[in-house]
Amino acid sequence: MNDEQKARFEQQMSFLLELDKMKNIYRQSYVLHEDRHENDAEHSWHLAVLTIILAEYANEPVDLKTVIETVLIHDVVEIDAGDTYAYDDAGNATKAEREQKAADRLFGLLPSEQGAHLRQLWEEFEAQSTPEARFAAALDRIQPLTLNYTKKGISWKEHGTKRSQVTARMQAVANGSETLGSFAAEIIRRAAAEGLLKDE
Amino acid sequence: MNDEQKARFEQQMSFLLELDKMKNIYRQSYVLHEDRHENDAEHSWHLAVLTIILAEYANEPVDLKTVIETVLIHDVVEIDAGDTYAYDDAGNATKAEREQKAADRLFGLLPSEQGAHLRQLWEEFEAQSTPEARFAAALDRIQPLTLNYTKKGISWKEHGTKRSQVTARMQAVANGSETLGSFAAEIIRRAAAEGLLKDE
Repeated sequence: MNDEQKARFEQQMSFLLELDKMKNIYRQSYVLHEDRHENDAEHSWHLAVLTIILAEYANEPVDLKTVIETVLIHDVVEIDAGDTYAYDDAGNATKAEREQKAADRLFGLLPSEQGAHLRQLWEEFEAQSTPEARFAAALDRIQPLTLNYTKKGISWKEHGTKRSQVTARMQAVANGSETLGSFAAEIIRRAAAEGLLKDE
Repeated sequence: MNDEQKARFEQQMSFLLELDKMKNIYRQSYVLHEDRHENDAEHSWHLAVLTIILAEYANEPVDLKTVIETVLIHDVVEIDAGDTYAYDDAGNATKAEREQKAADRLFGLLPSEQGAHLRQLWEEFEAQSTPEARFAAALDRIQPLTLNYTKKGISWKEHGTKRSQVTARMQAVANGSETLGSFAAEIIRRAAAEGLLKDE
């Protein structure tokens, strides 16, 4: 390796080591088989496996590699900006600005063309501007929904979450996948019927 | 959805929920920023990001989607078979048989063509029979090496691991990537010089 190649490799490794912090960012969802919250690394891995298995349900043809890359990095900005609970309105008001700064720093660790590529995928995800981003968002919503439902609504109960809030959040699912949108609606119906979600 | 489609979707969801157990399988490596071991879900996510960032160092042209799929599922057999420490000779003697049974059950949860696809990627990874499998294995070895080195050799100290053992395990890295093989050799040299690895 010459000096330029070495510098490039060091940039790549510094990004990869920095991303270890994803293992310490805890979300509101719980893992199924331990009494603890799920972290962003686990969540992102789970979404990537969902992508592989559920790809056939995307509304539009999607490039699978792009969806997988998107879900793998969609939450890295939380290393600086923290996790904001989906139903926390105050936190969500300042979220965009905090996340833009985080994206500048984190993707900026990489060689420029790699940083630009991942930044673009993240921007597309935020803007929901491609079929891949819309399908990724559908998965990002049904994964915690399914975990919460399977774990008897534990996060909803902690936050007093209402059926209408979950229904509103799950609207986006159908934009990426009608099939998964119907699945989400069915889970919400069951959760409400079983008293896991407050019916207002 | 007709009944056949429903059954297919239920198979897919049962696999995806079963895989939540990956979040509770703890490896010997530690995460960098908490005092706890890393689990298989976190490790697999990290490898997938390594794949995206370090792809240029593969010895042979690789299909990135295949490498990513491989690293995402390469450890799922540990849900039944458990994690075997790389330097545990007794555990490694029975590992193959335990893992074959686990693969039968876990990939068997999926619709047959999806199960067969992931099973094949896992078999290729175990046999190291494709460029993608060899590159995936290189990443699977340098990730814990780098974490351990960054965390001052914590796992090596706990196990009294010797330089010769790590050197032997890292031989496979160069089969997937000469560049990463040189990187691994350099890390081992530094770890030994710094007293993090026993020099016999």
